[in-house]
Amino acid sequence: MNDQVKNTGLDEAIAAVAARESVTEFYFVACGGSNALLMQGQYIMDREAKGVAAYSYSSAEFLARAPVRLGKNSVVVTCSHSGNTPETIAATRYAREAGALTIAFTHKPESELDEAAEKSIYYEFDPLTVGEKHNALLLVQLVLGSLKELEGNTKIDQVKAALPTLHDKAEKVKAAHADNAKAWAESYKREPVIYTMSSGSCYSIAYSFAICLLQEMQWVNSAAIHSGEYFHGPFEITDFDTPFIVLKTLANSRKMDERALAFAEKYSKRLLVLDAEEFGVEEVAGDAAEYLVPIMFTALLRTYAVALSDSRGHPLTVRRYMWRMEY
Amino acid sequence: MNDQVKNTGLDEAIAAVAARESVTEFYFVACGGSNALLMQGQYIMDREAKGVAAYSYSSAEFLARAPVRLGKNSVVVTCSHSGNTPETIAATRYAREAGALTIAFTHKPESELDEAAEKSIYYEFDPLTVGEKHNALLLVQLVLGSLKELEGNTKIDQVKAALPTLHDKAEKVKAAHADNAKAWAESYKREPVIYTMSSGSCYSIAYSFAICLLQEMQWVNSAAIHSGEYFHGPFEITDFDTPFIVLKTLANSRKMDERALAFAEKYSKRLLVLDAEEFGVEEVAGDAAEYLVPIMFTALLRTYAVALSDSRGHPLTVRRYMWRMEY
Repeated sequence: MNDQVKNTGLDEAIAAVAARESVTEFYFVACGGSNALLMQGQYIMDREAKGVAAYSYSSAEFLARAPVRLGKNSVVVTCSHSGNTPETIAATRYAREAGALTIAFTHKPESELDEAAEKSIYYEFDPLTVGEKHNALLLVQLVLGSLKELEGNTKIDQVKAALPTLHDKAEKVKAAHADNAKAWAESYKREPVIYTMSSGSCYSIAYSFAICLLQEMQWVNSAAIHSGEYFHGPFEITDFDTPFIVLKTLANSRKMDERALAFAEKYSKRLLVLDAEEFGVEEVAGDAAEYLVPIMFTALLRTYAVALSDSRGHPLTVRRYMWRMEY
Repeated sequence: MNDQVKNTGLDEAIAAVAARESVTEFYFVACGGSNALLMQGQYIMDREAKGVAAYSYSSAEFLARAPVRLGKNSVVVTCSHSGNTPETIAATRYAREAGALTIAFTHKPESELDEAAEKSIYYEFDPLTVGEKHNALLLVQLVLGSLKELEGNTKIDQVKAALPTLHDKAEKVKAAHADNAKAWAESYKREPVIYTMSSGSCYSIAYSFAICLLQEMQWVNSAAIHSGEYFHGPFEITDFDTPFIVLKTLANSRKMDERALAFAEKYSKRLLVLDAEEFGVEEVAGDAAEYLVPIMFTALLRTYAVALSDSRGHPLTVRRYMWRMEY
């Protein structure tokens, strides 16, 4: 499944950020799963950046909102796997015309997005595994690498030290969950609604699992619930038969997930709980681990999605509308 | 239902913003319905502010994320109707200790939130109507009033000219929809899932209807889908019997809603479409109308929610967990 990428373009992109006269804000702009992926960029910036603001938008919203501040002090990071998502290409062009530095993530060199952006980052792709050249890990390196250049932030060093260990750590946890994934899939295959829940660095993982894996690839109703918002509306939907997938994060946000989980466990008998601590990333990355667990969850959740698709007889590749018609 | 508020505190809050030596960013921080309400603040800032960044967070996420940039150049706007939401009180205290100017919206003077914030804005409350002293309209005035002081932005003048007309415009549209609301409620009363969809200034309205009205007050499964994201995952859930409530916005974002609606109309027979143009706000507010239609939708949607609750025999005041236990 992996086309090997020799030069990702990551170093050139960071150098381009460093070469800018002034950088006051990063915009992370993409659609669907790619949008979820890039949300991580804003999260890291919020947690780490002293002098750089950060925003995350779906591409069409970014174009419609047309932020007044967008200009030569802005870096706009976009992503399209195929490189041909019209809204994301348009957003990249719009940002470049406004004077922003544009950096595009894509799996397809020479795609329209690749041509539209000033700098491109090419990634390898296999959602069932964790790879150093996968988009999520290149994004973490782009953001923290840029912050090292701009502000002397050193978290990138912790990340680089941990990177070579992540693949095996993910495989180990996946193996430990293999039986549970099958049992879960059999038990949940007829559920009409499955909610996902998380917060902090992993809310975006809950979001992409809800919209891409459940709604898009399985036609199962879903919504991502933010663990902190759960108590202010959504928790009233909880009953003994309401299914939730809860991702327990690391760091400060973990308390939110624990609180939501403690409540959900009291009133629902249909919970799948996946815990970032299982991956053992903190032991190699220290307090940068919270930026590395999202991709670990992606690989682990994918094994659950594959099991669900097997039990439902509905392959993850089936679509009724996407790619099959004009829309 | 309306406790009359003599002095909202709006002018004092704007004066406090103007009196700050430097304001580089606004944080909008609250939980659930109040969080949805304040999202509007970031939207307006993105559209209008040349030199002020803006963020929107759920209170617990704000506390956990602990943005590095938060400090004396920040304004943190919070909101709790009861004034006793623990996460929002904690967020207000945290921001104030960090040196930020804190401004709290609340319906309850002398509440813990009121005491925690440097400035408070008191609002009148009746979700079935539109009032000049309702929180949504005070928020628009706080943001645009601050931008007038900080940057000379003049949109506040358009808003002020339109304010006195909004109540009657909302009543007119509500009256025109009265029969349809009842028919919709009867037809949809047994739906297990109802999606909401919008974008731009009204995405937050779709969000609050999903989490507060449907999930919380009706125990109906729901999720807010962003019209631009719809085509990148969620649209695969669409079938002839998948119910959507679509809010058509004004201005740039309208095209997104129209595109999503055109698709949804082709494949679902269960659509409720509410159109911001019906309110006639543009004729009095010009291009500031997009900031005023969210509250119009709130009042109109509330009539649909009341009708739904009647048909389902499930009053909007019923809760199984909220306020009934510790959590």
